[in-house]
Amino acid sequence: MKIVRAWALGALLSVAAATAEPLPSDWRAVDPDNLVLIDTKYGQVAVEIAPEFAPNHAARLKALIRARFYDGLSFYRVIDGFVAQGGIGEGTASTKDHPVEAKTLSQWPPLKAEFDRVSAPEPAFTPLGNPDLTAPEVGFEDGFPVARDPKDGREWLVHCPGTFAFARDNGPDTATTEFYIVIGQSPRRLDRDLTAFGRVLAGMQYLQKLERGDPDVDSGVIADVSRRDPIMRVRLASDLPVGERPAFRVMRTESKSFADAVEARRHPTSPFYFRKPPPVLDICGVPVPVRHGPLQ
Amino acid sequence: MKIVRAWALGALLSVAAATAEPLPSDWRAVDPDNLVLIDTKYGQVAVEIAPEFAPNHAARLKALIRARFYDGLSFYRVIDGFVAQGGIGEGTASTKDHPVEAKTLSQWPPLKAEFDRVSAPEPAFTPLGNPDLTAPEVGFEDGFPVARDPKDGREWLVHCPGTFAFARDNGPDTATTEFYIVIGQSPRRLDRDLTAFGRVLAGMQYLQKLERGDPDVDSGVIADVSRRDPIMRVRLASDLPVGERPAFRVMRTESKSFADAVEARRHPTSPFYFRKPPPVLDICGVPVPVRHGPLQ
Repeated sequence: MKIVRAWALGALLSVAAATAEPLPSDWRAVDPDNLVLIDTKYGQVAVEIAPEFAPNHAARLKALIRARFYDGLSFYRVIDGFVAQGGIGEGTASTKDHPVEAKTLSQWPPLKAEFDRVSAPEPAFTPLGNPDLTAPEVGFEDGFPVARDPKDGREWLVHCPGTFAFARDNGPDTATTEFYIVIGQSPRRLDRDLTAFGRVLAGMQYLQKLERGDPDVDSGVIADVSRRDPIMRVRLASDLPVGERPAFRVMRTESKSFADAVEARRHPTSPFYFRKPPPVLDICGVPVPVRHGPLQ
Repeated sequence: MKIVRAWALGALLSVAAATAEPLPSDWRAVDPDNLVLIDTKYGQVAVEIAPEFAPNHAARLKALIRARFYDGLSFYRVIDGFVAQGGIGEGTASTKDHPVEAKTLSQWPPLKAEFDRVSAPEPAFTPLGNPDLTAPEVGFEDGFPVARDPKDGREWLVHCPGTFAFARDNGPDTATTEFYIVIGQSPRRLDRDLTAFGRVLAGMQYLQKLERGDPDVDSGVIADVSRRDPIMRVRLASDLPVGERPAFRVMRTESKSFADAVEARRHPTSPFYFRKPPPVLDICGVPVPVRHGPLQ
């Protein structure tokens, strides 16, 4: 007996499903120098960083990666529905036998915050096309979800599932080495209060498998070091031999194809929606298409 | 060397952190007859259902559970950032050696949709206190995130992470046996278009470990049956011996304690927020406190 119910739900996901095949020119190849590959025991997570939003944080991240800083450390604070945070973790050896003493904070002094930057002109910034609850305006830029404030002419990356950022202490200029990746409902209250400068292109499902901490105990830090899942290896794609670099393309968010995809999501034509949803989109609920595989 | 950066982030999560200890009367014991326990190979997921929002769907679910319908079936359509869908799955044996032929649709005829209901009066409905992008008004009712439309006097459960609902085919009145649970950014476009009638109280991290399908292939259905993670067992807590029933309490969303917790989230006082976030909350980003353990 064949049961087909709810298959139509799937049509909601393929943002480009209702539109024509995008042109090759509608895709941007991800620069391997901005492609961070995080190996977990569950699989590889690919993060594209946006140095133009936080040049000093991006440079620090690359330096840390090239110093092999993260290799063998761990995801020591993982809170379901919120963030996976990785790095040293409160000065304990993050995993057994790791020479954490050689990785002191003195080598990596606190960074000045890079919470926002001067807004890019349109069409680089492509407005989503409807209001947002948190920010004066939201849209996309180079495939990243971005907010901006026309009053002060600043823009910033917003916290959506997959957003990559540096953690910090209470002061604004206190980030050094620790990073987090959003794994739950968009914590938009963090926008412009932490330095966000990347997003996951692939591998969210591996982050979702990470061992969790208890959010009510020590802010979700996993006290038992042996329970923490390791950060096995972090590399920049550009540091790998050319033949070993994964190739990613991201749909250009200023393209007609993306505009069509957003429109198709806003006004779905699938018969599944016998009652049409309100024509309003959540900036964190609009997927930016990513393709993984060799460039053609 | 002690590193304390970003610990303060944790304060964001404990919604009640900044408030006084709630009174015992601020908690509601979850009725074991509305507590669905789904055993996955990763751990147990506890779902509270809300029969008052969808009496026929709730009765069907209980009947299916008591018929052992789901035991041995699988999560056959799991899409990262969207939903985990379980049940028979397109008429294939969901897992090996399962007598799916004995579980034909004819036993479980399509249900009339229960997308919404007459609004409950306040204070049962407790407004969130700020606008929503999707619905005319949002708030909480018995711990569930709810939207309502003052124009037609109807209310409905909204799709947040953890929302439990029945899947359906294209027609509104086509749900029979298949369920889904939201595991990603709130898909609010599904609100009032599917029958949602529950939410996960505990165990989201186990759903996040489920084997994923490819959303671009067959709507995310996992074609290889052997790769699907099984639904090992589903029980109503009230069908277990009293000593084996897990006890859950949910903070009363009409209580002063919850109002204080929402206020503390809206206007955080932690020094981590040297710059205060906009005082606007996402209905799907406000946790309703849950306690697991014996009633005291």
